[in-house]
Formats: sequence, structure tokens, C-alpha cells
Amino acid sequence: MKKVITLGEVMLRLSPPGNQRFFQTDSFQVEFGGSEANVGAALAYWGLDVAHVTAFPDHEIGWAAKSHLRKNGIDTSFVEYAPGRMGVYFLENGAMQRSSQIIYDRAGSAFANLSPSALNWDEILEGVAWVHWSGITPALSQNCADLTLQGLEKAFEKGIKISGDLNYRSNLWQYGKAPHDIMPKLMELTQVMIAGTRDFNQCLNENHKNFTEAKKDAFDRFKNLEYIVKTDRESHSSSHNTMSGTLFGSKKSHSSKSYELTHIVDRVGTGDAFAGGLIYGLLHFKPKEAIEFAMAAGALKHSVPGDILICSVQEVIDLANGESVGKIKR
Amino acid sequence: MKKVITLGEVMLRLSPPGNQRFFQTDSFQVEFGGSEANVGAALAYWGLDVAHVTAFPDHEIGWAAKSHLRKNGIDTSFVEYAPGRMGVYFLENGAMQRSSQIIYDRAGSAFANLSPSALNWDEILEGVAWVHWSGITPALSQNCADLTLQGLEKAFEKGIKISGDLNYRSNLWQYGKAPHDIMPKLMELTQVMIAGTRDFNQCLNENHKNFTEAKKDAFDRFKNLEYIVKTDRESHSSSHNTMSGTLFGSKKSHSSKSYELTHIVDRVGTGDAFAGGLIYGLLHFKPKEAIEFAMAAGALKHSVPGDILICSVQEVIDLANGESVGKIKR
Amino acid sequence: MKKVITLGEVMLRLSPPGNQRFFQTDSFQVEFGGSEANVGAALAYWGLDVAHVTAFPDHEIGWAAKSHLRKNGIDTSFVEYAPGRMGVYFLENGAMQRSSQIIYDRAGSAFANLSPSALNWDEILEGVAWVHWSGITPALSQNCADLTLQGLEKAFEKGIKISGDLNYRSNLWQYGKAPHDIMPKLMELTQVMIAGTRDFNQCLNENHKNFTEAKKDAFDRFKNLEYIVKTDRESHSSSHNTMSGTLFGSKKSHSSKSYELTHIVDRVGTGDAFAGGLIYGLLHFKPKEAIEFAMAAGALKHSVPGDILICSVQEVIDLANGESVGKIKR
Amino acid sequence: MKKVITLGEVMLRLSPPGNQRFFQTDSFQVEFGGSEANVGAALAYWGLDVAHVTAFPDHEIGWAAKSHLRKNGIDTSFVEYAPGRMGVYFLENGAMQRSSQIIYDRAGSAFANLSPSALNWDEILEGVAWVHWSGITPALSQNCADLTLQGLEKAFEKGIKISGDLNYRSNLWQYGKAPHDIMPKLMELTQVMIAGTRDFNQCLNENHKNFTEAKKDAFDRFKNLEYIVKTDRESHSSSHNTMSGTLFGSKKSHSSKSYELTHIVDRVGTGDAFAGGLIYGLLHFKPKEAIEFAMAAGALKHSVPGDILICSVQEVIDLANGESVGKIKR
Amino acid sequence: MKKVITLGEVMLRLSPPGNQRFFQTDSFQVEFGGSEANVGAALAYWGLDVAHVTAFPDHEIGWAAKSHLRKNGIDTSFVEYAPGRMGVYFLENGAMQRSSQIIYDRAGSAFANLSPSALNWDEILEGVAWVHWSGITPALSQNCADLTLQGLEKAFEKGIKISGDLNYRSNLWQYGKAPHDIMPKLMELTQVMIAGTRDFNQCLNENHKNFTEAKKDAFDRFKNLEYIVKTDRESHSSSHNTMSGTLFGSKKSHSSKSYELTHIVDRVGTGDAFAGGLIYGLLHFKPKEAIEFAMAAGALKHSVPGDILICSVQEVIDLANGESVGKIKR
Amino acid sequence: MKKVITLGEVMLRLSPPGNQRFFQTDSFQVEFGGSEANVGAALAYWGLDVAHVTAFPDHEIGWAAKSHLRKNGIDTSFVEYAPGRMGVYFLENGAMQRSSQIIYDRAGSAFANLSPSALNWDEILEGVAWVHWSGITPALSQNCADLTLQGLEKAFEKGIKISGDLNYRSNLWQYGKAPHDIMPKLMELTQVMIAGTRDFNQCLNENHKNFTEAKKDAFDRFKNLEYIVKTDRESHSSSHNTMSGTLFGSKKSHSSKSYELTHIVDRVGTGDAFAGGLIYGLLHFKPKEAIEFAMAAGALKHSVPGDILICSVQEVIDLANGESVGKIKR
Repeated sequence: MKKVITLGEVMLRLSPPGNQRFFQTDSFQVEFGGSEANVGAALAYWGLDVAHVTAFPDHEIGWAAKSHLRKNGIDTSFVEYAPGRMGVYFLENGAMQRSSQIIYDRAGSAFANLSPSALNWDEILEGVAWVHWSGITPALSQNCADLTLQGLEKAFEKGIKISGDLNYRSNLWQYGKAPHDIMPKLMELTQVMIAGTRDFNQCLNENHKNFTEAKKDAFDRFKNLEYIVKTDRESHSSSHNTMSGTLFGSKKSHSSKSYELTHIVDRVGTGDAFAGGLIYGLLHFKPKEAIEFAMAAGALKHSVPGDILICSVQEVIDLANGESVGKIKR
Repeated sequence: MKKVITLGEVMLRLSPPGNQRFFQTDSFQVEFGGSEANVGAALAYWGLDVAHVTAFPDHEIGWAAKSHLRKNGIDTSFVEYAPGRMGVYFLENGAMQRSSQIIYDRAGSAFANLSPSALNWDEILEGVAWVHWSGITPALSQNCADLTLQGLEKAFEKGIKISGDLNYRSNLWQYGKAPHDIMPKLMELTQVMIAGTRDFNQCLNENHKNFTEAKKDAFDRFKNLEYIVKTDRESHSSSHNTMSGTLFGSKKSHSSKSYELTHIVDRVGTGDAFAGGLIYGLLHFKPKEAIEFAMAAGALKHSVPGDILICSVQEVIDLANGESVGKIKR
Repeated sequence: MKKVITLGEVMLRLSPPGNQRFFQTDSFQVEFGGSEANVGAALAYWGLDVAHVTAFPDHEIGWAAKSHLRKNGIDTSFVEYAPGRMGVYFLENGAMQRSSQIIYDRAGSAFANLSPSALNWDEILEGVAWVHWSGITPALSQNCADLTLQGLEKAFEKGIKISGDLNYRSNLWQYGKAPHDIMPKLMELTQVMIAGTRDFNQCLNENHKNFTEAKKDAFDRFKNLEYIVKTDRESHSSSHNTMSGTLFGSKKSHSSKSYELTHIVDRVGTGDAFAGGLIYGLLHFKPKEAIEFAMAAGALKHSVPGDILICSVQEVIDLANGESVGKIKR
Repeated sequence: MKKVITLGEVMLRLSPPGNQRFFQTDSFQVEFGGSEANVGAALAYWGLDVAHVTAFPDHEIGWAAKSHLRKNGIDTSFVEYAPGRMGVYFLENGAMQRSSQIIYDRAGSAFANLSPSALNWDEILEGVAWVHWSGITPALSQNCADLTLQGLEKAFEKGIKISGDLNYRSNLWQYGKAPHDIMPKLMELTQVMIAGTRDFNQCLNENHKNFTEAKKDAFDRFKNLEYIVKTDRESHSSSHNTMSGTLFGSKKSHSSKSYELTHIVDRVGTGDAFAGGLIYGLLHFKPKEAIEFAMAAGALKHSVPGDILICSVQEVIDLANGESVGKIKR
Repeated sequence: MKKVITLGEVMLRLSPPGNQRFFQTDSFQVEFGGSEANVGAALAYWGLDVAHVTAFPDHEIGWAAKSHLRKNGIDTSFVEYAPGRMGVYFLENGAMQRSSQIIYDRAGSAFANLSPSALNWDEILEGVAWVHWSGITPALSQNCADLTLQGLEKAFEKGIKISGDLNYRSNLWQYGKAPHDIMPKLMELTQVMIAGTRDFNQCLNENHKNFTEAKKDAFDRFKNLEYIVKTDRESHSSSHNTMSGTLFGSKKSHSSKSYELTHIVDRVGTGDAFAGGLIYGLLHFKPKEAIEFAMAAGALKHSVPGDILICSVQEVIDLANGESVGKIKR
Repeated sequence: MKKVITLGEVMLRLSPPGNQRFFQTDSFQVEFGGSEANVGAALAYWGLDVAHVTAFPDHEIGWAAKSHLRKNGIDTSFVEYAPGRMGVYFLENGAMQRSSQIIYDRAGSAFANLSPSALNWDEILEGVAWVHWSGITPALSQNCADLTLQGLEKAFEKGIKISGDLNYRSNLWQYGKAPHDIMPKLMELTQVMIAGTRDFNQCLNENHKNFTEAKKDAFDRFKNLEYIVKTDRESHSSSHNTMSGTLFGSKKSHSSKSYELTHIVDRVGTGDAFAGGLIYGLLHFKPKEAIEFAMAAGALKHSVPGDILICSVQEVIDLANGESVGKIKR
């Protein structure tokens, strides 16, 4: 069983039930989620040995968050308690032509306050095959930027494979640093990068006009880089998207099938499911199969409520192969 | 902030949750709604100063109805308590090829019993820019027909703009008058009329063969009439409609984009949201923009549960402009 | 009012609400259902006099199952209490590309244990016009195979029309008999057979390469056979199917319209609703109308949560005629 | 199996969930209930053969009401459809020192409009052992007063036992008759009367100062009268009552144990459960046991949500005997 | 209609349904509440003209909070939007011997950030009869301390009656000031003070050994002080308290009845309901009646879910008079 | 951190919400529970290192059961998948004088089918301080009796402390053995026995007239026995019990405080919480403190819905000390 480490903040997710707007609800559905932990949970459901590195406040809500990770099969040995709040995000599910809406309330979280010295990376990385990080973490605080760098350096040193989802978010980076102050060092250590043109431009302070140019620049700059991976999504409405993914090697690229995603249940976390699928795929399959597995995982996530893709490896493979889609399995 | 008066009955709406049929449910979702108050509420969410004129029974359910209007931003200074029942409507939400179904239980309501003398229209109309009524009100009782006429006459006198949604309902008009006994006087005072061929034929006791003919007749008869407005809706199923709207001046007409409305959440009140959008549009924009705003508002309502369109002006404009449709806004 | 007997197991159906996966739920929605009782309930809602023959354990859950049949208009005079469990099935509703999933837990049920001697078929069949059975019952136990045969023989003797839904299920037939040991005798007595190629092949231990061949074989073998009926369904996803039905006489066949079924609410029981529609149709209409009625009933069921089609005859006819589809009925 | 007829209106009961006030709720729990049908349902759960005589509007809500009676084991052969509304009552459950509150909306109901000629009492009363009515029915309309009288006369003629719960309600009797215009004739035919001092005074237009006096008057006037039955309830709060019952013969009386009822779940229908228990008791036991059975049934109802006592005969007997109270039965 | 101003933070209240612990829940019930707004809402339900002064973040959750105040009858003309978060508190309802638990997450709220200059107290206080504040507000931030002082000074100047609930909370006062730096100036301006010994000691930096001593000190120091009011509560369990209140004038005191509060529904906000009752009582009744009204209001709140006492004046008076307690009102 | 092993079946628990009866519900709340795992979960919440030994069917419901154990902090390394069903129990929560009711449907479960050879007790018991079993396990099947004996023998050999809850259930023991065939060998190895008179009599095939006699017999027979522990419970109603516990050494006994348990939320699992408290207490405290801790834990469980006591050590100690009972902790 391959061992994987994911690193990042996990927030309390509060969303009105069904199609209600924030104004209408008198209850919130409670989930916990965060980009990197979502990746880890998908991998854990597929049988990998996943530990997530994060921090929570030391009170009942923080304890519940930790218990949520355990429930989803994640090893919580490296979950710390730290001073600070529980990060929260409020999610209103869109429907039809109405967009989904997220209000973040994550400033001052326990994870943002986590001291890099609290983590013993040697212990964390023992026996590990893969580490996954995202561009959200270094955007939260200097602490978070520092501990990410420490972890990646240690992993690189140990020859562990590293994937990063650049995931540029304009409303983060409030602590005095710009992305290009921080990100290049982290990208340097990363072999598998999930990113689009805008992510590259923001992280590298560039102005590339298209993805081809950005991709070339990335492969030129980062000598450890093996793959750049990108999803293409067309949003016809909140209920209907078209989506496919491509895996770019420095020489060769592989594109997945395109999925017509109608009757969408929950759009959040679909990119994370894709990332999880990518890691699983690259650990077990050839590149072409890997990108198909990743995209099928991403597609499936649209049908599962919550942040996390809960499914079996077989379900992903069946969808990738177009088998028994939408039948009743007895 | 423009001041608007809406006039009409507000009923208790009881609907089985989700896709349940009446037979199956053991709970009803509780909303309050009525065509004209729905118009008012949409306008209130967009920042206008809206007061609704109606009456409720003086007991807890009536009080809750009034509180519901306040919650939705409506000024309830002109909500009266009157003898009679709380009007009720039972709504079963359709799905797929199965139609939605409404059972009305509104006879003998407090609003139908409201004495015209209970309303001080001079006070109500002070500072008002627009009055909206519908053909449902004069269909309820002689009292309601009388108080509508009094209100419109006073509004007309004061130079307030008047819109009316003819909204002919064959199961109303039970109090001994036919539509053509009552409606023409009210239409005479109305500058903006929402109506289709059948509405005109019933209200004027005519037999026009198509809308063009009916429209010509209306512009001929009613010298104060500025606009006739009409929506065109094709119902492929309860879950999928196609819809557009047109604003007809006596000389010139403007049609909105056509919307492909799949994955419909709640079809009720979509015409009211359209009417609200029309009033907002005509108060703030040019005719072409007004009909686009109206139709985008009507389209958005299909995604919001309940009778009322809850959204911001920006959301309507974004949809009218085709911007960020179905994306996640963070 | 025509009298109909249906025979078969009724299980407790437990399903996570909405689109939740088994892993996520902390509640199950409770229904009761079983292929043949579902047929009976649809017929009862359409006004026929239906009694269902089955057995439940003699405790509160069994009593509730019986009360459920009564609620749905079924006469429970021939519901027995027998030793054994309440059969259970767990249903996870699929969505989008994710399949629905059923886990059966029905071994050792009261119905499987029901002694054939407990049923007085003379009494049960008094005044009856139609008997419906399915291939699930003889697959459960020797008892069930025996009592089905006894009932059908008696019904045949009395000249009662018999329909059977072959419904081959590979995970049943655990009691030491193969389908072809049992089914041919039952098919011999049946005038209306719902079946596809695989059903015929399994029940007759044949290897027909296509439906035409299988159909010919069936008409050759079974001299009482009047109609073979078959549905064609294409599953684009759990949320979108295309479906039609065909009624094959030995000489002539009639196909229904094809339905584009998007936004599917509950796929379970759609075949039973079709079967119910077929029985109602053949009892009241000509063959072409009967198959249209059957298919419209089957289509409508996709919009109703639970195992049972709850609707009026008028709603089925309206859909078959393409009238007021998806409108709001007031 | 003894056959019992109950007669009376059944209303749609709408109540906010839990302890919510009307103002707070956005859903109503849906039940159906009415004093006499509640009596009938309890008897049906205890295995008697009960048919209820009433009328509903001929639409989905009326159909659902009828289905509700069937679900609770009641024979609905004598349920008519009549013009008029579905009677509704809104119930707010009290808690602690806060009282429960009921808002009736029953004027113009199908039952109040039911023509006496619609009922064939000869057919209804065939094989019947007991008829139960209450003072609510004759208070609804002249029709209802007339049909009650017709039914009781016919029952009396046939020697069927008759019980009546006088149940005076000051907010009824709106149709121009006073209780004493109507009730004495009905009481004349009744052998078992559930009543308190106020009921007697209102129905007989008397001014008795206490129950002893009222009781004496009743036994003097009504020669068919066998028992007067009365409950004594002390309301410490909505959550805590103390209650006992007494059965008065003309010579001898029997009092039940007194029950300390804390943690009350649903107070509505407890008198009806008592009345049902009384009928069951008098049909099966001696007077002392009958009043104990009645009071235990009334006590148990406080623990069951809804209008109806759902329990077995054994549960009532166990409580009357003080056996296994509050244990876990496995 | 008397006009009242209340001032203070309103938080989003998130609580697991029923008796669930934080660990167990997958939904939160959503309310909004804050000590002073709770006081205002009770007064608004009793018909007073109440405006609440506070601030929210300018996003959907803040808008919903404002709409919640409107729904509860509060004038929101003086609700500001300010930079900062929505304050949140998580509430786990206790039961039996298990305590309720509150986790505050209110640091950095819009209200704490509200600039005193944003409030125009002359406008706010126009026509006002009473102002209510609590010791929570000056404990939040220097801004809040300053704006409270400005408001009270202006109110005092205008001869408006001022009540304050000292409400010392040890986990607040994080901004560098101690209570005794701030509170004495505010207490100086207050005529009606709700406080216990610990509140006085903390606010005045004293060490009084009992309430009599503390009370004497307060009357000695604060020359404008008319009444000190105190509740006495004994917590037998989360489900059972005993409670009474006393109004102390400088010379004379009045104690309310003692209430045995069993089957408690929601303990939160009971002190605020008491404070609201006190204000209503002192505005309308003599001191003895005022304290009885206050305590009856406080007692009733234990039966109402949420932060706010929703009831009528008549219900409070009935309870104070011991009338129809726990009956069903029809 | 002390390591504890618990052994036993975990069932799917299905219960109607709130106070509904089985007949009324259309949903079941889903929990998982079993006597020994409940003990383990309480210990895990208190920080011990607990692994549970059991088996589930290898499908989604079994996986969910395992995930449920993980969520509650239990190590699932020794959870096996085995052929057979998921054991189910249906629970109807009692209220007031109405008893709770449990319907078991556990025959043929994966755990009952678990082969003793599937368990490697040497591995399971490595580093373990305490093993807990109950009399339910050997009552399920010969397999279960055998594997319990193997585990206890190995544990005894290693000097691990063993506790057993005799828990005689008359509706088990269906596999051909009587309790006294099996239990004495298991009791022989047990140092801490939770049992009452009836348990001893059934397990030893004795007829002791009282607990004193039974206890003496046990201490005489079982030389390894250190403590017999017994709870005394008086059930006034389902909502109100009185309860205390006593720890009997061969020489000396210690009784806990008696708890007045009113407003009971969930009675199931209270004995397991007591057992968990006992183990925790004996591992950390002196006997008198241990029994107080056990009884406080048992008392607290009555307030927590579900099978498992979720609370902190501090909460138990506070209750045992009578501190801050029923207060709001902020």
C-alpha cells in the first residue's frame, strides 16, 4: 500500500440544504473540506495509506474536524492543535444559470498560525511515496509558506515524488508577500504541476499570452518538472459543464475523453478529485490511463455531495471505460 | 430610492418537500406568496422602497405572514388585519414529464373581505413612483375590485406610473361579475400591461385570433397604455422550459434573449420575477435593457425555491450580459 | 371495478436521502416495495380492486409493511404472517454518471418461508380478472416456487388472465434449482410475458442470439402465450435515459413513443409501473393504446420517489397524448 | 371481530416541528385527525373492525386524508366525497409553562356540507356492535346535526350500543342553532356519555353547580343512559399533567389509577384515546377493568406524536397493570 | 407606541439539532442572536417600536442577519455595514446532567470594528423612551467602548431612561482595558442595572462578599441609579432549573414568584427575555408587577427555541397570573 | 496511552426519529452500535488506544460500519470482512410510560460466521493492558464462543486484565449450546465481572435467590475474580430512571452516588458507558473513585443520542464531583 502525504488547511464547510440561498436557510449542512485533504481522502478511499498534515483549534469543532478526517480513512497522526480559529467557508450551491457562491472566513486559523517547528518532517515522510501540496497553503501566512518549503525540501531530498496544484487565489496572499516571492522555490521541487495559464502568470509574475507559452516557460525553468496537467471546463450553467483533462510531458501529451456533465450535484472538490485521480493514476498506470483515471474521478465527484470523492477504484475505471454508466448495480 | 406600491393577496403556500407527491408527504414546506407581493419582494431585494397593501387574519398565521413580508424587505405599514381566513395554496412540484399542481383554498380570505374604506390611498401613495396590480385581485370579490379601482384612480390622478399583470384565472371570478364588467376600467388607468392573447380576450370579452390583433385592439382602446409585455414559454417538461420576453410599444418592440432553462428548481413566481424585473428595468434603463433585465430576472427565479426571486441587481445584470454564468464565485 | 391479484415479496427499502452515498448518510428513507406489489399499487391508484398475496414477520416492522400496502390502496386480506425476517434492500440513488446501487438482504424472509398450504387460492381468486407474478418469486425458495405454481394453475383453470415479468436475477436461485427447472411450467400458464432475450435464455436454458429468435421460440413453445412485451432503455447516465416499449403479438407488434427521460428522480420501479400500465391498458384499451399507456406510466414513474407509481389514469393518458406536459395545473 | 362505526370530521393537522412557535417554522408536520376518527383508529389498531363515516373534498388532499384512514386500519367504504374544503387545524405544541395553541380553519368543509341523504345508514350499520359520535359534529352545520340524528336513531332501532363524547366547543355552533336545540335528542339515544359539568350545562342549557348535580340530572332525564364517564386532569404545565378517569353508573362508580404524566410528547387526542379505550374496555371487560384500560390508553397517547394512539392491546394492559413500564423490550 | 433603542453585537448562532453533541452533527440550526438584540426583539413582539444599533459585514451572511432582525419586528435603519467578520457562536444544547456548551468565534467582527463616528446618536435617539446596553459591548473593543459611552451620554442628556445588563464575561476584555477602566463611566449614566455580586466586583474592581454589600456600594456610588435587578437561578440539571427575580430600589425591593422550570427547551436568551420583560414592565406597570412580568417572560423563554422570546404580552401576563398554564388554547 | 481491546458484534441501528413509533416513521436514523464497541468508543474518546475486534460483510454497509468505528476513534486494524449479513437492530425510543422496543435482526451476520482462525490473537494483544468481552458474543454462534475463548486464554496467559459483561439475553443462544456449557470457562479467565443475579443464574445454571448468594458463589468458584460490579436501576418511566452502581471486591464494596435521571434522551448503551467508565476508572483511580467515574459515565450517556457515550474525561469527573451540572459552559 503506497503511502501519501497531503498538506493543507481543512475548513468547516457550511452550506444551505438543496438549492436554498443564504437568505433563505435556517440550517447549514456541515462538512469539512480543504483542497489537499480532499485529494488525500479520495486516495484513502482507493486504498492508499494517506496521512494529512494540518492544524486545528483545540476545541470540540477542531476535534470534530479531526474525527471527520479519520472517518474518511485518513491517518491523523500529524494533525496538530494550534492557537487560532477554525477556518470556515460558507457555500451556496448554484443551480441552473445561478452561480455557486463561496464566502471565506478563514483569517486567523489554527493552520495559518501553525509554527513550522511543530512539524517533524523526517518522521512525517518516513516510507512515503508521494507528497501533494497546493498554492493555497503558501498564500495563507509566512508560517505556512515556510513549513511548505521545509516539507518539500525534505521530501525532495528523500526522492519522494511531489505534486502541486498551483491554484492561485486572488483574495489570499494578504500577509505581505506576492506569489512570485514564494512560489518559484516550491515549484522548483515539484515534478507534477496542475496549473493553467493564469496560475503560471501569477506565480511567476509573467504575462504569457496562452497556455503553450506558459507551459514552455515552466518546462524551461523547472528542471525537475515531469508533467504539467490542466483541465478544460466549459460552464454552460451551474447544472451543466463540459470537461476534459490533459497531461503534458515535456515532449508528449495525453488528453482524456470529454465528459458532458449534466444534473451536477456538487461542483466543489471536483478539481481535487481530479488531482487525486492523477496521483493514483501516475502511481499505478501509464500516462494515458492516468489522465483518463484522473478525469473520470473528477467527473464522478460532480455526483457526490460534499468536498470529497467517495468511490471505489472500480467505479472510476468503469466510468473511464464507459461501462455500466447509469445502470442500477444489484 | 424609488418607492413602489404593490397590491394583492398573500397566501400560505404549502408544498411537499423535494419531488414528493401530495399522497406521499408527511410535511409541508411553508412559504408565503402572492403574485403582486412576489413582484414587490424582488424589487425590495434590489434596493427599492416597497410597501405592500394587503390584509391578513389577526392570528398567529396572519402575523407570521406579515413577518414574512418584513423579512423579505417589504414595508408592512399598509398591511391590515381583517375578518376572514388565511388564503392557502397547496403546491406539488412537478418533475420531468409530470406537471406541477396547485390546489387553491382561498375563498373567504381576509383580503377578499377587506373593506375598501380600510385603505387610505392618499397616505399609501405619498411619494410613490410606481403602483403594480394584477387581474387576480379584482377577480376575488367586489371589495377587492372596488379597492383596486380606488387605488388606481388615485394613483393615476397623482401621475404615478401603473403596471398591471392581467393574469386571467378561470377558477376565480366567482362573485357574480365577469372580467369584462370590471377589468376595462382598471386597464384604462394602466400604462404597462403584461398580457397574452387569452388575457385580452377574457378581460375585454373579445375573440381575437392572435396576439397581434389583441395588441392592436388594446393600444386602440387604452390611450394611457405605453407598453404591452408578453413572455413566450415552451414547456418541454417540468424540468426544462425555453423562455423569452418581448416589450411592445405602440410603435416599436424589443425582444430579450431566449433562455434554455434546464434543471428547473421552482417554476412558481417566475412570471412575477419577470414583472418585477420589468418595473426595475423601466425605472432604471432603456426599453431594450429593461426587457433583458426582466427576462434575466425571470430566468433566475427558476433556480430559487419559493415564490420570491431573492437576488442582487448585479446577478441579474450578469446573467443578462452572459457573464460568469454557472461559475463558482469566491 | 376489475379485480386483480398480485403475488410477491415486499421488502423494506432503505435509501440515503438525496444524492448521498451509503458512506455519507446518517439516515435512511423508509419505503416498502417489491416488483409485484408495485404493479398492484399502481393499479389500485387507478381504481382497480387489487389484493396482494405475500407474507411478513409478525412484528412491528411487518405490521408497518402491511399498513403501507393498505395506505397505497391494496387489499391486505391475503397478507400472511410467517416465521422469518423482513426482507431488506438498501438503495443508493445514482446521479449523473454514477450508477444506482442496490444491496439485497432478503435471505430467510417470511415470504421465502411461506408454506404453500397457508394460501387458499380458491378464496383468493374469487371474482378475479387478472393475476400478475414475476420470476423473482420462484427464485426465492422451493416454497415460493411451489405456491406460485399452485396459484397459476388454479388461476388458469378459472380462466383468469395471467401476466408474468420473467425478471431473471442472477444473484437469486440459491436454493438448488435452476431457472429452467421451474420457469417453463409457470410460463406455460402465462398469456402476457414481459421479457428480454437474456430472460428467455436463462429461463429456458437456451442461447438465442437475439430477441427475434427468442421471441419465436417462446411463441412456438407456449401455446397460451398472447403477448410478449419488452422495453428498450438506453442509459446515457443515471439522470438521463431514453426509453420505449413494444408489445409483440404472435403476428403483429405495436411500439410506443420513445421518451427522453432527463432529470430522473427515481429509476426503481419503473419497469413495474410499465407492467401495471400494461395490465391496465390490456384490460381497458386496444393493443396500441395499451402499450402507449404502459410506456407513459413507466415514464411517469421516473419522476416519483419510492417504488410505486402514484398517479391518476388521467395523468397517464395526458402524457401518452402529449398534453399539458410540464405545465402547472391549477 | 367486533364492528364499530365512528362518525365525524377529519381535518388536515398542520404543526410546526418540535417546540417551534408558529412564527418560527418553515415547515409543518402533516397529520390528519378528528376526535371520532381518532377513537376509531385506536380501536382498529387493537384489532376491531372499524369503519369511519365522513366526507372529504374530491382532490389530492382529500384523497390523501382517505389514504391516511386506510393506513391506520380504518375501513373507508363509507367515506364520501362532497363539495367544500378540507378542514384544517394548525397546532402549536406547547412546552413547559407555554400552552399549546390550536387555530381552526374548518368552516365550509366537505363534511359540514355533506347531505344527510348521501348516507345509507342501513348499509353502514349492518353487523355493527357500537357507534361512536361526538358533540363536535352537530355543532358544525344543520346537515351534520341531521345526519347524526338519523344515524343514531337507526342505530338505536337496531339495538346497537351508542357512545357520545359531548365535547362542547364554544367557537362552533355558528349555524343558528344552540346546543340545547339539538343535543338533547342525541343524548336521549346514547348509552355511554363522556362529559363534564360544563358539557352538560351547555348542552342542556342548565346551570348545575357541580358534577354530582349534573350527573344526577342526566341520569334522571336520559332513560337509556348507562354510564357517564369523566376524566380529571390537572395541568401543571404543557409537559406535566396528572390524570385519572371515572366511570359512573347510575348506582356505582369506578375510578382508575391516577397517572403522573411528565415529559408529555403530544397532548392532542388523549381524550379520544381514552374514549377508544373505554369502548374497547366495555366491549371486553368489566367496568372497573374498562375504566383502567381507558385511562391507560389515554395515558399512553401522551407519548405518541400525532392525533392517534398507535399501540397494541398488550401495551395498554401492561400499563394498566403497571408492568414493564419504561423498560426496554427486546 | 414607546420607542426603544438596543445596542450590541448580533452573532450567527450555529447549533446541532436536538440533543446532538458537536461531534455527532452533520447540520447546524441557524439562528442569529445577541444579548441586546434579543431584548429588543422581545419588546418588538410586544408591540414596542424598537430599533437595534449594530454592524454586520457587507455580504450575504450579514444581509441575512439584518433580514433576521426585520423578521423579528426590529427597525434596522441603524444597522451599519462595516469591515470585519460575522461573529459566530457555536451552541451545543445540554440535556439532563450534561451542560450546554458555547464556543465563541467573534474576534474581529464588523461590530467590534465599527467606528464610533459611523453612528449619529442624535438621529438614533429621536423620540426614544428607553435605551438598553450590556457589559458585553464595551468588552469587545475600544471602538465599542467608545460608541457605547457616546450613546449613553447623549441619551442621558436627552433624559432617556437607560438600562444596562452588566453581564461580565471573563473571556472578553482582550483589547488592553480592564472592566473597571471602562464600566464605571457607563454605569454612572444607567438607571436600571441588571447585575449580581460578581458583575459588580469585576466592573468596580471590588471584593464584596455578598450581594447586599455590593448593592449598597452601587447605590452609594451611582446617584442616577434607580433599580438593581437580579435573578436567582438554581440549576438542578440542563433540563430543570428553579428561578426567580428581584427588583431592588434603594429603599424597597420586590421579588417575583419562583418558577419550577422542568423540560427546558432552550436556556439561551432567558436572561435577555427577563431584561426585556423588565423594560416592558417598568414602562407599563408598577414595580411589583414589573418584576413579575419580567420573570414570567424569562420563564417563558425557556420553552422557545432560539435566542429570542417570541410571545404576546397576554401570554406573559397569563403566566404571571398563573392562568391557563399548560392548557390547550383553541 | 493504555491500550485496550474490545471484542464483539457491531450492528446497524435503525431508529425512527424523535418519539415516533415504528408504524409512523418514514425515515430511520442510522447509527452503528454493539455493546463491546460502545465500551471501546467511550474509552477512545477518553484518550485510550482502543482497537475493536469484529467482522463485517464486505460491501458498502459493512465499509460504512468500519468507517463509523474509525470516526469514533477506534483502531480498525483487526476488523475482518467475512461472509454473512450486516446484523441489524431496530430501535423504537420509548417516552413517558411507553417502553422502548428493540427488534433484532442479527442472525447469520458476518461476525457470527467469523472463523476463529481468522484472528491472530498474538498480534491483536501486543502491548495491550485490558481486554473487554460480553456474554452476547458466545451466545451468537459456536464460532463466536470459540474465538472468545481463544482470545481470553491468550490474554490471560499474557497477564492482561480481562473484564466481562455477562449480559444474558434469552433470545440468543440459538446454536445448540446453553450458557452454562460455555460461560463458566470464560468467566474463569475474567477478573472484573459485570453481572446481576439473573446473569449468574443463567450462566451457571444456578438458582440463587438473591445477589448476595450469587456473588458469594461467584467469588467461591472463580479464583481470578477481583470485582463483581452491578448497577441498580429503577425505571419510573422511559423518561425517568434512578440509578446507582456498586463495585464488590471479595471483601469490600463501594457504591456510587445515586442519580435521578429525568428527561432521558437515549437509554441504549448506558450500561456500556458504565462498563467503559469502570475500565477507565480501574485503570486510573482507586476503587471508590472508579465506581463513581463509571456511574457518572453511565448517567451522562442517558443524555447523548446514539449507542456511544461521547464526552471528555473532564465532563465525567465534573459530574462525579457534582460540579457545574447543567450550567452553560462558555
